[in-house]
Amino acid sequence: MAQTFYVVAERIRKLEVQGARNVAIAAIKALEALTEETTSKTWKEFLKELEEARATLFASRSTEPLMRNAVRWIISEVEKSGKKRVDALAEVVSISSKQFLKNLEASKECIANIGAKRIRENSVVFTHCHSSTVTHLLNKAKKDGTTFEVICTETRPVFQGRITAKEMLALDLKTTFIVDSAARSFMRSVDLVIVGADAITSEGNIINKIGTSTIALSAHEARKPFYVVTELLKFDPATVCGDFEKIEERDPEEVWETAPRKLNVRNPAFDVTRRDFIHGLICEEGIIPPHSAAEVVRRKHPWVFRR
Amino acid sequence: MAQTFYVVAERIRKLEVQGARNVAIAAIKALEALTEETTSKTWKEFLKELEEARATLFASRSTEPLMRNAVRWIISEVEKSGKKRVDALAEVVSISSKQFLKNLEASKECIANIGAKRIRENSVVFTHCHSSTVTHLLNKAKKDGTTFEVICTETRPVFQGRITAKEMLALDLKTTFIVDSAARSFMRSVDLVIVGADAITSEGNIINKIGTSTIALSAHEARKPFYVVTELLKFDPATVCGDFEKIEERDPEEVWETAPRKLNVRNPAFDVTRRDFIHGLICEEGIIPPHSAAEVVRRKHPWVFRR
Amino acid sequence: MAQTFYVVAERIRKLEVQGARNVAIAAIKALEALTEETTSKTWKEFLKELEEARATLFASRSTEPLMRNAVRWIISEVEKSGKKRVDALAEVVSISSKQFLKNLEASKECIANIGAKRIRENSVVFTHCHSSTVTHLLNKAKKDGTTFEVICTETRPVFQGRITAKEMLALDLKTTFIVDSAARSFMRSVDLVIVGADAITSEGNIINKIGTSTIALSAHEARKPFYVVTELLKFDPATVCGDFEKIEERDPEEVWETAPRKLNVRNPAFDVTRRDFIHGLICEEGIIPPHSAAEVVRRKHPWVFRR
Amino acid sequence: MAQTFYVVAERIRKLEVQGARNVAIAAIKALEALTEETTSKTWKEFLKELEEARATLFASRSTEPLMRNAVRWIISEVEKSGKKRVDALAEVVSISSKQFLKNLEASKECIANIGAKRIRENSVVFTHCHSSTVTHLLNKAKKDGTTFEVICTETRPVFQGRITAKEMLALDLKTTFIVDSAARSFMRSVDLVIVGADAITSEGNIINKIGTSTIALSAHEARKPFYVVTELLKFDPATVCGDFEKIEERDPEEVWETAPRKLNVRNPAFDVTRRDFIHGLICEEGIIPPHSAAEVVRRKHPWVFRR
Amino acid sequence: MAQTFYVVAERIRKLEVQGARNVAIAAIKALEALTEETTSKTWKEFLKELEEARATLFASRSTEPLMRNAVRWIISEVEKSGKKRVDALAEVVSISSKQFLKNLEASKECIANIGAKRIRENSVVFTHCHSSTVTHLLNKAKKDGTTFEVICTETRPVFQGRITAKEMLALDLKTTFIVDSAARSFMRSVDLVIVGADAITSEGNIINKIGTSTIALSAHEARKPFYVVTELLKFDPATVCGDFEKIEERDPEEVWETAPRKLNVRNPAFDVTRRDFIHGLICEEGIIPPHSAAEVVRRKHPWVFRR
Amino acid sequence: MAQTFYVVAERIRKLEVQGARNVAIAAIKALEALTEETTSKTWKEFLKELEEARATLFASRSTEPLMRNAVRWIISEVEKSGKKRVDALAEVVSISSKQFLKNLEASKECIANIGAKRIRENSVVFTHCHSSTVTHLLNKAKKDGTTFEVICTETRPVFQGRITAKEMLALDLKTTFIVDSAARSFMRSVDLVIVGADAITSEGNIINKIGTSTIALSAHEARKPFYVVTELLKFDPATVCGDFEKIEERDPEEVWETAPRKLNVRNPAFDVTRRDFIHGLICEEGIIPPHSAAEVVRRKHPWVFRR
Repeated sequence: MAQTFYVVAERIRKLEVQGARNVAIAAIKALEALTEETTSKTWKEFLKELEEARATLFASRSTEPLMRNAVRWIISEVEKSGKKRVDALAEVVSISSKQFLKNLEASKECIANIGAKRIRENSVVFTHCHSSTVTHLLNKAKKDGTTFEVICTETRPVFQGRITAKEMLALDLKTTFIVDSAARSFMRSVDLVIVGADAITSEGNIINKIGTSTIALSAHEARKPFYVVTELLKFDPATVCGDFEKIEERDPEEVWETAPRKLNVRNPAFDVTRRDFIHGLICEEGIIPPHSAAEVVRRKHPWVFRR
Repeated sequence: MAQTFYVVAERIRKLEVQGARNVAIAAIKALEALTEETTSKTWKEFLKELEEARATLFASRSTEPLMRNAVRWIISEVEKSGKKRVDALAEVVSISSKQFLKNLEASKECIANIGAKRIRENSVVFTHCHSSTVTHLLNKAKKDGTTFEVICTETRPVFQGRITAKEMLALDLKTTFIVDSAARSFMRSVDLVIVGADAITSEGNIINKIGTSTIALSAHEARKPFYVVTELLKFDPATVCGDFEKIEERDPEEVWETAPRKLNVRNPAFDVTRRDFIHGLICEEGIIPPHSAAEVVRRKHPWVFRR
Repeated sequence: MAQTFYVVAERIRKLEVQGARNVAIAAIKALEALTEETTSKTWKEFLKELEEARATLFASRSTEPLMRNAVRWIISEVEKSGKKRVDALAEVVSISSKQFLKNLEASKECIANIGAKRIRENSVVFTHCHSSTVTHLLNKAKKDGTTFEVICTETRPVFQGRITAKEMLALDLKTTFIVDSAARSFMRSVDLVIVGADAITSEGNIINKIGTSTIALSAHEARKPFYVVTELLKFDPATVCGDFEKIEERDPEEVWETAPRKLNVRNPAFDVTRRDFIHGLICEEGIIPPHSAAEVVRRKHPWVFRR
Repeated sequence: MAQTFYVVAERIRKLEVQGARNVAIAAIKALEALTEETTSKTWKEFLKELEEARATLFASRSTEPLMRNAVRWIISEVEKSGKKRVDALAEVVSISSKQFLKNLEASKECIANIGAKRIRENSVVFTHCHSSTVTHLLNKAKKDGTTFEVICTETRPVFQGRITAKEMLALDLKTTFIVDSAARSFMRSVDLVIVGADAITSEGNIINKIGTSTIALSAHEARKPFYVVTELLKFDPATVCGDFEKIEERDPEEVWETAPRKLNVRNPAFDVTRRDFIHGLICEEGIIPPHSAAEVVRRKHPWVFRR
Repeated sequence: MAQTFYVVAERIRKLEVQGARNVAIAAIKALEALTEETTSKTWKEFLKELEEARATLFASRSTEPLMRNAVRWIISEVEKSGKKRVDALAEVVSISSKQFLKNLEASKECIANIGAKRIRENSVVFTHCHSSTVTHLLNKAKKDGTTFEVICTETRPVFQGRITAKEMLALDLKTTFIVDSAARSFMRSVDLVIVGADAITSEGNIINKIGTSTIALSAHEARKPFYVVTELLKFDPATVCGDFEKIEERDPEEVWETAPRKLNVRNPAFDVTRRDFIHGLICEEGIIPPHSAAEVVRRKHPWVFRR
Repeated sequence: MAQTFYVVAERIRKLEVQGARNVAIAAIKALEALTEETTSKTWKEFLKELEEARATLFASRSTEPLMRNAVRWIISEVEKSGKKRVDALAEVVSISSKQFLKNLEASKECIANIGAKRIRENSVVFTHCHSSTVTHLLNKAKKDGTTFEVICTETRPVFQGRITAKEMLALDLKTTFIVDSAARSFMRSVDLVIVGADAITSEGNIINKIGTSTIALSAHEARKPFYVVTELLKFDPATVCGDFEKIEERDPEEVWETAPRKLNVRNPAFDVTRRDFIHGLICEEGIIPPHSAAEVVRRKHPWVFRR
């Protein structure tokens, strides 16, 4: 298989690429590279090559539904095209790759437009970790002329909240920054919680940065609306079939670089937020109850369930 | 007033002394120093000097009920003694100071004996921050031959959980260490939560390290017993009279040393855990529902309410 | 534009027409009048006239999804017809107007048939405000021979509960009448709560007369079934796109005619009841969980989402 | 028995005197009148007369613990005095009556001082009905220089909330006035709920104006602090012995003057708020958890339990 | 009508056949027998005969949605076939009967494959009553090499839990057996609850053996995942139209053979578990939130709603 | 030591005596027997004999606080008497034994009087297992002329509910009898739950027959009042000091006589009901919140805490 593909796939596997969206983009680029460098002579060979690439990419990370759905889509487009020449198929890869990225961008825009309407004048928005979809949405609300402030957590262990804080300040938004443990103490002054997602399960739960579910619980306790902004394509069809969304466990050194030798440092990167804590998923199909996410995906993106 | 007293009072004021117990001990030592260095000629002068010392100590920190109760006790002993000579009164200070410290030590021992019985064989104990009363209790349980493991949080922003982790390893206990945000993810495997306290309010709530109330909420959500170990003398009589337990706000640099200039970094040191999340207070009077804490203090330490 | 149309549209705007169903009927009548009095010469002119009428009606009230969906349907039928003569198009308006009203009536009948089965023998039914769909349903249950009693609230500020009470007595049903604040006190003796709705949101929440959400909360607290009877066409597609269902704020004089000048009297007409408090929506498609309302509307009335 | 006594007792019985405090004051005045007009010759006759007066007053209203405790106290003072002359006993009645009223006034003052500290700067305080203890407390907070606003309900059926609203405006406080059903809609913007009480039960529940328990439920749902201000002497010792606190049912015409003949209008004046919804009772003994109310009464007013 | 059909229908009516699956199989066999023994000469006669058989079977039991759906399917296949000869129609009955049974078997297999993935290594699975779908799933998990233990209730009044216990032991699984009342006491040590279902309602609730809803409540209280394994064809379309799922009430002697004559022994066989207590339905379409069950049935088995 | 004492102690140990009250009575009788048959010559010998008897009785059962408190009381009376002759001390044993039994009887009477007032006309009372205190209370209510019905569970594994059912029928009360698992299904029609207790803990929880805590949870879910009737002397002072109330585990054969050999049948006799599910303890001191049970015992029976 082509050289560049492997380099990228390896970078994904080694966690050098981070964030659901970045991983998906990298995988798409890898497929494009594969196509450009292919030495396949027949469409059968090419399809086999693609299938191997898919297996490699799927194996590179325990759970990355957006990336997997990107790969699924591109291969399904190739198969659907019915073309029989390698160069024609390669072109399908190229076109559908671009299309996927374009759709992804459009979804983000659409989500920002919808979600920005939920930011009320003079309100306080709480967020956790860093999500480009969330910050894009807040940017939109700000541009629409809404006045609001933001509270963001630092998000241990790798402090992604600092990125969020800087972006919020760059938007000239009044921003408060707290340790993760202080979320419940500040919840009473919050009007709305918005977070991103890494995956949506068939039960309607979402997977997001560790700490999200606790914030959802605190929001629920204080009757504060809790919204998740996410592309529908973060839906993981494997969960339909009973697979657990695997929670990536990262390097303990992120938590404590000089931890005592016998200490069992655990570093799960994500947690699961129950559908009952979520007021709505803000996705490219509008605001939906998480309970119907799977059915909406079936209606909108039926190919997700095919393989 | 005496030199040494001021030095110590100043160290308390500047947060150089940390932890309810250490602050109380420092204040007692300050009073002893004051007594040793006193230049008062008459008992009236001496009492006035004591009264000023009390005011200085009370003003040094927004809330430190244990320290305040220590000072209250010593001065009430002095007044009760009815003595009229400065050296006699000084001796009362000295004796009652020692008595207070001895009682404090006895309480800790008593709490450890009681609480250790609650650690069941092969159980998992969860704790937050560092409390010498909690670790003493776990030490006792271990010595009693109980086999159990410990999960402790890192406790941002100043990582007191690392002290706890090291002490647990030193006791040869299997210890798991997590970021604060992961508490809810690990709650399902927990059998018992035990934390310390900085203050008890008249409503039966407790004040403890930021994050405690969220852990209590998560424990409640998962029907896990949540216990608070604390000397009754952490009861704050000012709350009876409507004062809020003030939540100390510490240096933002603890949270982010190089925070952007305009960022509003907030760093509250404590939060409030509602009585309804607390299965029991483990104190020197045994295990009591937090709802009756004020009445138990009235029965056991009526002098606390006097001034 | 035609005279009669404006008269009716103005009556809607001035709140002279009340109740989701009545507003929808008035708007349909207005469109029929517009059609009868049209001076358009070409289909383009006619369509433009219709489009302006639509804009006028939509602007007349902050939220009236049933009316808006009626207008949407009629215009979509006109467009779908592909006809090119004004009189032919006018006939489509006329036919589809009648069809909409007929469907509305059929929905009400269907809802009554379904809901009446839920009234158990010797039960106590609680309702709030006045909803003709609810009273029609109770009428049906009574006719089916079921023996039951009714508790209804007075429904401040304009006492619509008195209309309900009179209708219930006219049906010869044992009826108890209470102030709104007494709802929770009587909830223990209730077997079933049924209320109407003014709007359904994309999250599955319903908008109904102020006080509904509190009754839902009290029913939930006492484990009493809470049902909402509503035509699916009260679904508001704007909520899918992030718009808040706007809560109409009425004349403060309804609350206190002679209120002191500086008093800030607030008079919101509706509130939002969360999907989790609702056992089921009883609609023309049967009893459905509110969580799937949007998907059922998509399946049954896809044109609602078109514009 | 004396004329004036009967006149007053009759006014109490006919509900011409309203409000726990006013009823108690009226009963005390009646006892003073009885004493002044007594024709008893011996202390035995006088005591018998008092005993009959007590029975008359207790029978005049289904539940008025403050009035009953006032009568209990005065008679217990008479008995305790050991005096044997009618004029001496009459003097005891006179002195203890004055003392009771003075204590009552002092309690109110004390409660205001304590409670006012709980009103935070720039907060929104929610109240229901009209309680002179609550308005006195808010007056105190205002005088202390705290800036806050008030939301009050109209309190159907007799609109006592209008009295509250006028008093708040007279204090120059920003005041919002809503129908009772809108309480939950405004709860999100509330910082603190404070209400009065008519009775405290042995279980720690409180009895207050109809609608209170629903507001407490809504406050609980939104994690808002809910406080009850009340003199401890509203504790009803009969509840210890299993008696229900009887809920007075008032004239249906208060609800609907021209109600249809067959309509069963119910008009309970009070409801029961569970101890678990109450953050604290603010009473003359400070802020206490309602769970310990009975024990605090035993400690402070042991005579309440005697008969 | 044919002899054998009546014998089987009668056995169903007399509760001699038990369990949703067995009743469905018996009814299918009855239809096959009817077909084999038919004396109908024309397709009209045959269809009439089928229709009568359907009525007889539907009347035989108050609620057996799986059986009813089986009959619905077979008759709808017959009608759809458009065939006009009795022998050809009889063949359709025969083929579709076999098909239904095959699909049922395939569903069970599919459910086992999906559900088995949810059994984590070293976990404790709790179940109630006896469900062949549940035990098949556990069998699959065991075969897949997962190590786990099982807790099962005895399931009064007819001790079906003993069958489950024996089957679990036969699989060599560590099995704990308790009385039904002890379920909550053991819930803390449980990792997962799995039960079967007799019916699914349009609201997303499930009907299962008496006691199920209490176990669901206890699981919810302790934040334990609660799954229901069920074929989608247990969906009861009558509930869409407002019918209550009727709860069969069995012979009181099952509860107490020698009960005193005047004792009102009640023996409902099933109870209703609310959708909000159910993490997911594990069905042949994968794991779905119960809230979308009706929509999934509409998508997958639209014929269910036809009659 | 005396023969008869040992016979009785042995019967207690072998679980031949059942029920907190019966065990206490048996222990008292054993002490009386010991006293009658004593061969002690001196008061020191006698006290030693008593001390040994105490140890024997305490060791006979894991938890029986009423029995332990009976023994504590009698021995404390003996010690308090200050008598120095064996026959005089024996008489103290005899007198205090009788006194304890008399007090116990008086408590039961008092509890019945208090609790009977809580049975409202035409209400439905739910109870679990058999408690002579509960049935005595219901008897009292019946005698007082209240009309009510009773629902009782069978109470597996040893069907004590059958005894309750028979006693209720003997009182001519309408009685419904259900399996334990059906409690939640019938909870909606219940007005009041009353159960007995075997022990009260320092946290305010109660220990009662297995299944009680689930019924309490179901009552809480449906907002039904849940009362526990119990003598205060069931308070276990060992729980103050951290001891768990040990839950007796009985013979597995009670659950399944012919259980398969490898089946792990568990048969805990009791469970723990949290204070928050209990509306009130109905005890000889009146109705109290369980949260203050320990303080009430301290006030009323301070000797309980002595040893």
